[in-house]
Amino acid sequence: MQKIAVGVLGATGMVGQQYIRLLENHPWFEVAYVAASPQSAGKQYKEALKNGWLVGGELPARVGELVVGDVSDVAAAAKKCAFVFSAFEMPEKDLIRQYENEYAAADMPVFSNASAHRGTDNVPMIIAEINPHHLDIIPEQQKQNGWKKGFIVVKPNCSLQSYLTPIFALMKEGYEVEKLIITTLQAISGAGYPGVASLDVVDNVVPYIDGEEEKTENEPLKILGEAKGGTFVPHRGLAISAHCNRVPVTDGHLACVNVAFGKKKPSREEILSIWQTFRADPQTLDLPFAPKQPIIYRDEPNRPQPRKDRDADKAMAVSVGRLREDSVFDFKFASLSHNTVRGAAGGGILAAELAYKKGYIAH
Amino acid sequence: MQKIAVGVLGATGMVGQQYIRLLENHPWFEVAYVAASPQSAGKQYKEALKNGWLVGGELPARVGELVVGDVSDVAAAAKKCAFVFSAFEMPEKDLIRQYENEYAAADMPVFSNASAHRGTDNVPMIIAEINPHHLDIIPEQQKQNGWKKGFIVVKPNCSLQSYLTPIFALMKEGYEVEKLIITTLQAISGAGYPGVASLDVVDNVVPYIDGEEEKTENEPLKILGEAKGGTFVPHRGLAISAHCNRVPVTDGHLACVNVAFGKKKPSREEILSIWQTFRADPQTLDLPFAPKQPIIYRDEPNRPQPRKDRDADKAMAVSVGRLREDSVFDFKFASLSHNTVRGAAGGGILAAELAYKKGYIAH
Amino acid sequence: MQKIAVGVLGATGMVGQQYIRLLENHPWFEVAYVAASPQSAGKQYKEALKNGWLVGGELPARVGELVVGDVSDVAAAAKKCAFVFSAFEMPEKDLIRQYENEYAAADMPVFSNASAHRGTDNVPMIIAEINPHHLDIIPEQQKQNGWKKGFIVVKPNCSLQSYLTPIFALMKEGYEVEKLIITTLQAISGAGYPGVASLDVVDNVVPYIDGEEEKTENEPLKILGEAKGGTFVPHRGLAISAHCNRVPVTDGHLACVNVAFGKKKPSREEILSIWQTFRADPQTLDLPFAPKQPIIYRDEPNRPQPRKDRDADKAMAVSVGRLREDSVFDFKFASLSHNTVRGAAGGGILAAELAYKKGYIAH
Amino acid sequence: MQKIAVGVLGATGMVGQQYIRLLENHPWFEVAYVAASPQSAGKQYKEALKNGWLVGGELPARVGELVVGDVSDVAAAAKKCAFVFSAFEMPEKDLIRQYENEYAAADMPVFSNASAHRGTDNVPMIIAEINPHHLDIIPEQQKQNGWKKGFIVVKPNCSLQSYLTPIFALMKEGYEVEKLIITTLQAISGAGYPGVASLDVVDNVVPYIDGEEEKTENEPLKILGEAKGGTFVPHRGLAISAHCNRVPVTDGHLACVNVAFGKKKPSREEILSIWQTFRADPQTLDLPFAPKQPIIYRDEPNRPQPRKDRDADKAMAVSVGRLREDSVFDFKFASLSHNTVRGAAGGGILAAELAYKKGYIAH
Repeated sequence: MQKIAVGVLGATGMVGQQYIRLLENHPWFEVAYVAASPQSAGKQYKEALKNGWLVGGELPARVGELVVGDVSDVAAAAKKCAFVFSAFEMPEKDLIRQYENEYAAADMPVFSNASAHRGTDNVPMIIAEINPHHLDIIPEQQKQNGWKKGFIVVKPNCSLQSYLTPIFALMKEGYEVEKLIITTLQAISGAGYPGVASLDVVDNVVPYIDGEEEKTENEPLKILGEAKGGTFVPHRGLAISAHCNRVPVTDGHLACVNVAFGKKKPSREEILSIWQTFRADPQTLDLPFAPKQPIIYRDEPNRPQPRKDRDADKAMAVSVGRLREDSVFDFKFASLSHNTVRGAAGGGILAAELAYKKGYIAH
Repeated sequence: MQKIAVGVLGATGMVGQQYIRLLENHPWFEVAYVAASPQSAGKQYKEALKNGWLVGGELPARVGELVVGDVSDVAAAAKKCAFVFSAFEMPEKDLIRQYENEYAAADMPVFSNASAHRGTDNVPMIIAEINPHHLDIIPEQQKQNGWKKGFIVVKPNCSLQSYLTPIFALMKEGYEVEKLIITTLQAISGAGYPGVASLDVVDNVVPYIDGEEEKTENEPLKILGEAKGGTFVPHRGLAISAHCNRVPVTDGHLACVNVAFGKKKPSREEILSIWQTFRADPQTLDLPFAPKQPIIYRDEPNRPQPRKDRDADKAMAVSVGRLREDSVFDFKFASLSHNTVRGAAGGGILAAELAYKKGYIAH
Repeated sequence: MQKIAVGVLGATGMVGQQYIRLLENHPWFEVAYVAASPQSAGKQYKEALKNGWLVGGELPARVGELVVGDVSDVAAAAKKCAFVFSAFEMPEKDLIRQYENEYAAADMPVFSNASAHRGTDNVPMIIAEINPHHLDIIPEQQKQNGWKKGFIVVKPNCSLQSYLTPIFALMKEGYEVEKLIITTLQAISGAGYPGVASLDVVDNVVPYIDGEEEKTENEPLKILGEAKGGTFVPHRGLAISAHCNRVPVTDGHLACVNVAFGKKKPSREEILSIWQTFRADPQTLDLPFAPKQPIIYRDEPNRPQPRKDRDADKAMAVSVGRLREDSVFDFKFASLSHNTVRGAAGGGILAAELAYKKGYIAH
Repeated sequence: MQKIAVGVLGATGMVGQQYIRLLENHPWFEVAYVAASPQSAGKQYKEALKNGWLVGGELPARVGELVVGDVSDVAAAAKKCAFVFSAFEMPEKDLIRQYENEYAAADMPVFSNASAHRGTDNVPMIIAEINPHHLDIIPEQQKQNGWKKGFIVVKPNCSLQSYLTPIFALMKEGYEVEKLIITTLQAISGAGYPGVASLDVVDNVVPYIDGEEEKTENEPLKILGEAKGGTFVPHRGLAISAHCNRVPVTDGHLACVNVAFGKKKPSREEILSIWQTFRADPQTLDLPFAPKQPIIYRDEPNRPQPRKDRDADKAMAVSVGRLREDSVFDFKFASLSHNTVRGAAGGGILAAELAYKKGYIAH
C-alpha cells in the first residue's frame, strides 16, 4: 500500500514536532509537507527549528530535508498532501479558523489540535473511543460550507483526556453521571516551548492555567452531546467543576476526580470491571494508534504517576487508580494521560485513522 | 521578665529542629532542655544531629551545647523545664501516648505535634484562631487523669491548616458549610528527612500520602466540634472529601477547595470581606507568633503559590486566592499555608502562647 | 541622618526589583526614583510590574506608589536622586553604555549591574572585599570624561563571585595562583524572568549559558589587575578555564574549583586559616551590607549547597567547603554565593556603600 | 537458537530490575533465575518487589512469575542458569566478594555491577569498547582460583563512563592524555531507591557523593592498564581529578571535562573525526547491545543534555558536545551517558555479550 501524504501546519512548534515524531513509520500516513509562518517558509525544516528538536529522539532525517511551505499558500499544500494536521500555536484564533477553513475548502480534511474551531457548531470534537459517531456529521458540515472533500475535525483540550474516557465508560453502561469535581496537576509541556518559566515551577506549583478550567468544564459536554440537524447539542445534566494546576512534570496530566452518579449507582467492582473491559471503535477497528486497552486500572495504592504511567501503551492509554468510595459524592479516583501524545498529536492521529477507516478521507 | 524554660521531645528530628529554630529569640519561652532516643542521649545536641541541621539557617549555638536527655527520663525534664513541645516522629503511637501522659503526670504541660493523642476524647486539638476555647477543657482533662499542673494539647495535621481557617471564618459569620471537596498539593518536608525519595518527585507527582486523607477529612470535625461533659463531640453536618498529592515543593501545602454552603449563602464580596477582617484570640491577645492578619487574600489570578506565599507573616498566615463561583458547589478557591511552620512547630508554639496567656501554664 | 535619595534604572526587571527589595530599610539610602522603558513610564511602579513582584516578600508599599520615569529622561532623575543603580536587562549594550554615560554626565554616580561598561578601561569593576582601591580611579575617570560629580562603577558577572573571593584571599597572603579550572552549577534566577524555560531544567541540566564562560574567565583578570595611567591593566600570570551549567535551583551559584599555585604553596591548614580570618574594607568600615565574615568555611562533607547556604549572612557571604588536595593541581574545593544578592543587587549596594564611605558620592 | 539461561543476583534492587528490563527479548540471553536476600526468597518475584517496579514500563510477566531464590543457595542457581549478573546493592563488600567467588567456583561466570571485586588484581573491569582484550585474563583468573568454567568480570562505576570512551578514542589514535579534570553532574538513579532524599535535590544540588570521586579517579587507570603475569597493572602517566555532584535529574550523568595532552596534540577537527569514526569490538562483532556509533558528537551549542541525550542508541551511546580549546589545558568538552543503562546493567550485558562471542561462556 502506498502511504497517504499528509501535511503538518504549524510544523515548527512543539505540537507540530510531536506530529512529525509520531507519524514517522506510520503504516498508513507519511508526512509529505510541512508548513509554518512566512519567517520559516523556504527554509529546510531542520533549519527552521529555531529552538531545535524539542520532542525527544532525533528529527526524522527525511522530514528534516523538506522545504517549509508558507501556511497561507494553500494551493501548495493541496499539491502535496491528501489531508493536514493543524498544529497552530499562535494566539489569533480568527486567523486559525480562517486557515483551517481554507484548507478544508481546498479539499483537504483538517485534523486540528487548535482550539479555534472547537466551539463551531458543526465541527466534531473527537476522542476516538468516546464519540466516533460524531464524525458522521462530516457530510452535513461539507454541505453547510460548500466543501467537497475537505472537512474539519478537532480534538479537545489535553486537560480533560485524563478523566473523560473513564467517566464515559461508566455512562455508556447506563450509569448517569451528574457531577464531577476535578483538580488537575498538569505537565509543563502543555504550554509548549519556551512555555512555562522555570522560576514558576522550581520549588513551586501554580494554581492557575489561563483558559484551562473553562475548557475542562465545557468541552466534555460537546463530546458527550449529540448532533441534531447538523449541529452539536451539548450533553445536559452533567455539571463539571475544575481546578487546573501547573506542576513541575515534563509530560503527563494527572486528574483527581470526584464523581456523583444519578439514581443508579455502580459498585466499586462494577466500575473496575467496566473500565477493564471497555473497548471502542479504535480497538475494534484495530487502528494503528489505538491502545489495546484504553483504560488501564492500577492496583498499587500510589498510582497513576506521571513519570511511571504516561507512556502506557504507546502513551495512548489512560491510567486510572485509587478508586474509592467518596464521603461527599459517590466515588473518587485519580487518572492520567500523556498530554502531548494522547492529549494532542496522538489523539489527532487516532481521529484521522478513524476518519480514514470510516471512508471520509479520499485519496 | 525571665523566660519560661521549655523542653523539646524528639528534638533531633525535623519537627524538633523546627521548634528549636522558631523558639530562638522567643520573647517568653526559651529552650532549656532537649530530649531524644537513648542513642542520642548523653551527647551534645549538635553532635546528636546525625543528618545535620535540616531546617534552614544555623543551629542556635546555645542549644547546640545542650546535652540531650533520654525521653524516658521524665524526672530529668521536670527539673529543667516548665512545659514541653512533643515532636516525636517515631511510628509507635502507643509509646508516644505513654510518654506524653508521663510528662503531663509529672506536672509538665505537653503541646504535641504527634498524631497519637489527636483522637483522645478529652485532648483539645487546637488551631489557635479557630477553637481557642477548646483549651477550657484542660481542668476537666486534669481531673479525669489525676494530673495537677500537666495537661496535653495537640495540633492537627498539616494538610488541613491551609483551608480550615478560611472555611471557619465563614462558618463563624453564620454561613453553614455542608460539603467540602479538597485536593491538596503537599510539600515534601511534610514527610520529614529523608522522607520522600527523590525518584518519586523529580519529573513526577504522587497521588497518595499514607493516612493523610483520613486525617484531612476527620480532624476538622473535632476542631469544629464542642466539648460536652469533658469530651469533644465532633461537628455534624459537614462532609469532607480529600485527595492528597505529593509534589516537588520543599515547603508549603496548597489546597484546591470546593465548598457547598447550607441555605444561607454568602456573596463573593461577603466572603472576601469576612476573610480580610477575620481576627481571633491570637490577634486580640497579640501573641508573639500570631499573624497580624490570619487570612491574606491575594488578587493576582495565579496565587497563592508555595514558594511565593508560604512565608507570609512569619510563615503563620494562610494565603488564599482564586475565589470564584462554582458550577457544582457554591464557591471554589485555592489556599496555602507553610506546613512545617503554621502547620507544625509554629502552630504548636502559638497554641502554647495561647495557653500561657490564658493562665493554664504555671511557672 | 537624612537618607540619600537613590534611583533604580530598569526598575521593573528582576534585578531592579531585587535592588528595591534590598534597599527597603537601608540605613543610608532610600529609593526615591524608579525608571524603566517608555512603555512603563508614567504608570505607578506597582502597576508597571507586568510579571508581578518576582523577588520574594511583598513589594515595599512606598515604592509601589512611585511613578515610573522614562530612563531616557535623565533630567527628571537628576532632580530626584543623588545617584542611581543601573539594572538594565535589555540586550543593547551600546544603548546601556549611552544611558549610563548620560547619567554620569548629569552628576549622578552610576552603580551598574549591566555588563555594558565592564570592558571600559577606566571603569572599575568592584568586588568590595577584593579591589576597593579600584574606586580610586574615579577622579581620573571623571577627568577623562569631563564629568564633575558623576562616575560609573560596575560589578562583575554573578558566575565568578562564588569562587573569586576565596582565591583572592589566598593571593593576598602571598600565594600566587597560576591556574584555575572551574565548573559552575548556576541557578535559574541568573537569567531573569521568564528566563530559563522550565522544559530545559525539569529532569535536566544544560551545559551551556550564553556568554557566561567568557565572563567567568576574563572578568577576574580585571578585578585582580591594577590601574596604571587612568586605565586598568589586567592581572597576568593567571589562566582560568570555565564550564558553566544551568541547574534547576532558584538561587545560588555553586562552583567546583581546581587551583594550581605558583612555587609557594599553602598547606590545607593555612588555607583554612586564611579564609576564616579574611577581612577587608567592607568589614573594617562596617558597611551595612558587609557580611561579618566574607568567607564561611563549612566542615560538613557535603556542603556548600545552594538551598542551605545561599542565605548565609544576609546572602552576602561566600560559603566554601570540601577543600582537599588535588591529584592534578594543588587543591580543589566547592564554593557558593547567592547570585541575585551577593552576585547582583547586594554586591552593587555594597559597592555604593563603599564609594559613599570613601567620599565619592556627594550629597 | 535456544537462549542461554541467565540469573540475576540482587534481582529486587533497582539495578537488578534494570537487568531484567533490558534482558527482556534479548536475542541470546533469557532470565531464567532470580535471587535475592532470604527475606525475598521463596516469593514470586512480582511479590518480592517491596518498592514495586522502579525502572519504567511494566515488569515482564514471565519473570514476575519466577520464584526468588536465596542468593546463598549457589547450587540452586547452578541448576537453572549458565551465568549470572550480579546486581548486589548491599554495603557489605566482603560478603559480595564471597558470593561472587562462590558462583564462579560453581562454574557460573559472573558479570558484576558491584564494586566489590573492582580492585581484585585478576578481575577485568570492562568497558566493552575500551578494553575488550582484558577478558583474555579469564583463563589465568580461573587457574589462580582453581575455577573451571566460572570467572568474574566487573564493570566500572557509572560516573566515569560518560567521559572515558571519548578520552580513550583519542589515546587509541596515539594522543597521549596526561591530565584530566572532571566535574560530574550525576543523576539520582545512581543511588538506587529510595536513595537520594528529595529534600536534598528539590531547589538544590549536592556537591558530594560518597566514594564517587575516588572511583572516578582510580578506576580508569585499571581499565586503561594492561595485564602482566596474570594481574592488571594500572596505566601510568595519567592524572585524574574529579568533583562529583548530585543534581535533580532522574537518569543521565553529565561530565564537564578538561583534558591536557602530552607533546602530540590533536586539532579540534582531528578530535571530531576520531570520535565520529571510533568503532571497537562491540561494533565489529555486531553485539546486540552495541551502539552503532559509540560516541555521538552533537553540534548544538547546548548539548548534551541528560533528558534529551541519555537515550541515544538504546541508551548505550555516549553523547559529547561543546568541544572547544581550553585556556588552561588543551581542550574541554561535555559528555553524557545513561547511568543505569550504559553505566550499569546495559554495560554489564554488553560485557557478557562480548565474553560470549569470544567463547568464554560455555553452555
